Amino acid sequence: MSASDNDNSPKQNFAPLKNDRLLRALRFEPVDTTPVWMMRQAGRYLPEYKATRAEAGDFMSLCKDTDRATEVTLQPLRRMDLDAAIIFSDILTIPDAMGLGLYFETGEGPKFKRTVRQQSDIDKLPTLDVNDSLDYVMRAVTSIRKALNGQVPLFGFSGSPWTLATYMIEGGSSKDYRYTKGMLYSNPELLHQLLDKLATSVIDYLDAQIIAGAQAVQIFDSWGGGLGHRQFIEFSHMYNKRIVAALKARHPEVPVILFTKGGGLWLDIQADSEADALGLDWTMPLDRARQVLTESQRQLTKQHKKLQSSKAIQGNLDPATLYGSPETIRSEVKLMLDSAYACGEKTGYVANLGHGITQWVDPDHAKVFIDAVHDYKL
Amino acid sequence: MSASDNDNSPKQNFAPLKNDRLLRALRFEPVDTTPVWMMRQAGRYLPEYKATRAEAGDFMSLCKDTDRATEVTLQPLRRMDLDAAIIFSDILTIPDAMGLGLYFETGEGPKFKRTVRQQSDIDKLPTLDVNDSLDYVMRAVTSIRKALNGQVPLFGFSGSPWTLATYMIEGGSSKDYRYTKGMLYSNPELLHQLLDKLATSVIDYLDAQIIAGAQAVQIFDSWGGGLGHRQFIEFSHMYNKRIVAALKARHPEVPVILFTKGGGLWLDIQADSEADALGLDWTMPLDRARQVLTESQRQLTKQHKKLQSSKAIQGNLDPATLYGSPETIRSEVKLMLDSAYACGEKTGYVANLGHGITQWVDPDHAKVFIDAVHDYKL
Repeated sequence: MSASDNDNSPKQNFAPLKNDRLLRALRFEPVDTTPVWMMRQAGRYLPEYKATRAEAGDFMSLCKDTDRATEVTLQPLRRMDLDAAIIFSDILTIPDAMGLGLYFETGEGPKFKRTVRQQSDIDKLPTLDVNDSLDYVMRAVTSIRKALNGQVPLFGFSGSPWTLATYMIEGGSSKDYRYTKGMLYSNPELLHQLLDKLATSVIDYLDAQIIAGAQAVQIFDSWGGGLGHRQFIEFSHMYNKRIVAALKARHPEVPVILFTKGGGLWLDIQADSEADALGLDWTMPLDRARQVLTESQRQLTKQHKKLQSSKAIQGNLDPATLYGSPETIRSEVKLMLDSAYACGEKTGYVANLGHGITQWVDPDHAKVFIDAVHDYKL
Repeated sequence: MSASDNDNSPKQNFAPLKNDRLLRALRFEPVDTTPVWMMRQAGRYLPEYKATRAEAGDFMSLCKDTDRATEVTLQPLRRMDLDAAIIFSDILTIPDAMGLGLYFETGEGPKFKRTVRQQSDIDKLPTLDVNDSLDYVMRAVTSIRKALNGQVPLFGFSGSPWTLATYMIEGGSSKDYRYTKGMLYSNPELLHQLLDKLATSVIDYLDAQIIAGAQAVQIFDSWGGGLGHRQFIEFSHMYNKRIVAALKARHPEVPVILFTKGGGLWLDIQADSEADALGLDWTMPLDRARQVLTESQRQLTKQHKKLQSSKAIQGNLDPATLYGSPETIRSEVKLMLDSAYACGEKTGYVANLGHGITQWVDPDHAKVFIDAVHDYKL
């Protein structure tokens, strides 16, 4: 395949793709081996990442530095036989661009200087021109795509509206989403206003990333799992579904992966979207996930009176597995792949961790994971 | 019913039970209305609790002060028509009694002065004589049971071995269980040694609470949901199952509720235990939970060639619902109860929150919840 497969992308003369294993798996086409990548694969477990980050200064300076963002994106690919790259950025770029003042306190995670808790806060949020206020992201996408030179496909990504809203309302990360759920249960219309604004920006943002060169995109619904089942549908899934539909209308050939951490119970709900694949954390066995998705496909086909396509699956090794010995990692990978392919179909699956790789992992252990996936006999 | 229903409890001449709605629901007997209580119902959302706590000094001093522990246990029952009391204590009393030095830093949650990370740490852990080192808990149980004077049944409780182990290994609460999962994946036998010791102590502890007067017990597997599905079975469920079996052998009439937060995906696994009821957080619809449990009962009956009893269900209102208006609380309660009874059986269900009530809830809103449950027409 070639870059022209992205119909709506400008003709930037990107190099032809050499390794299309991941895109083939997402389309349920035959693959020679299982494609694999890792969420947060450019990160603090790599000494070379820490060195580049130290040169750049703080985290957001690194994101905004096109050359260094390109460099750290490529670093894990030099060590490991990864089947995808993902642009080095943060899920909180949109609220930052909306003027909330993102900053990182050591050991405390992301924080915002300003929160969004009432009507006037929402009214003040600007409608983003992503190519203006988030132009550094698009520059990085194009730079990385060029630097990859067709080696593997490049992912763009965004946080989901619900996930972004939790950070914006709480002012940072949260255990129990006190203010966000307070708004949800006491003033749901206000929350919907915010989610609606965010969904519009996420669509524009991912659209712009695709036009800049992203060959697949993933939506991180990192905190969707904290919602009640009905609330998940109303306050997270409906917005994700709308985003995916808008992206598929503009870029039918670009795969979209939807990942709700803690969303294993709701695969049947998420199946009712145009996402090409659903991401899974480590709590759900892959054979069961496949069964749920097959049944959902059957039900949705009946309901819509039109054949619904299969959903590929991505995941789901517990990142903590990488703290184990190479033998443990290999045996856990084998169990995971046995489960992924239990239904007999030897495609439609992308191996990954069930969440981001942690800073305490030995890079050699990450490599054992990647190699074990590729060594598995389909 | 009377206290003699607890066959193995000493004849302490406790007053006969006036409200046995909760015990009847757990036995699938007819009930006049749905029993309801709240996890952490004696807590910081109540100004009278804060006053008593201030008198006692720190949290553990309050737990160890029989009169004040009795007082705070009864406080929510004066405000609300609750169908159960639960002894005021902490899930971390066992590791504290093992000498790890439990303390609470303001706004930071529980911490331990010493952690358990290697063989020598485990070897040093004493075999607890719970009636010696945890005698303050049994004194509180008996005192509360007497003070209740038969008003409602009294719950005893314990943390699950897995949940206790995470605190002991991390030295406090944790987002990703770095050291606990490190041990799980790199030295699982060591973790099993710790879990085995903890399971023995939990059995003795709950047994002693029942003998002291507890009329039901709940096992809080608060962090079970952080495990992978296979690891949940091996490192959490198997120990919970053993604890429940030992308790049911000693006290067949005392109901045991098993609550794994984030365990909705694993109800079929937990069904394979002698627990009378399974607790659920807010992520799993109750009608679906009932379907899973009915199917599990059928499968287990076939497998064991002996009729397996039905499991009651407890839960599952999102505690954040109580931030909403009285109208919202009532409509959410109605949806929950409609779902709980969707299969037609009007018992076998205990209403509760899906996790502890938070300190920011208006006590009047908690009362709206309790009343809405009772007002629901079965």
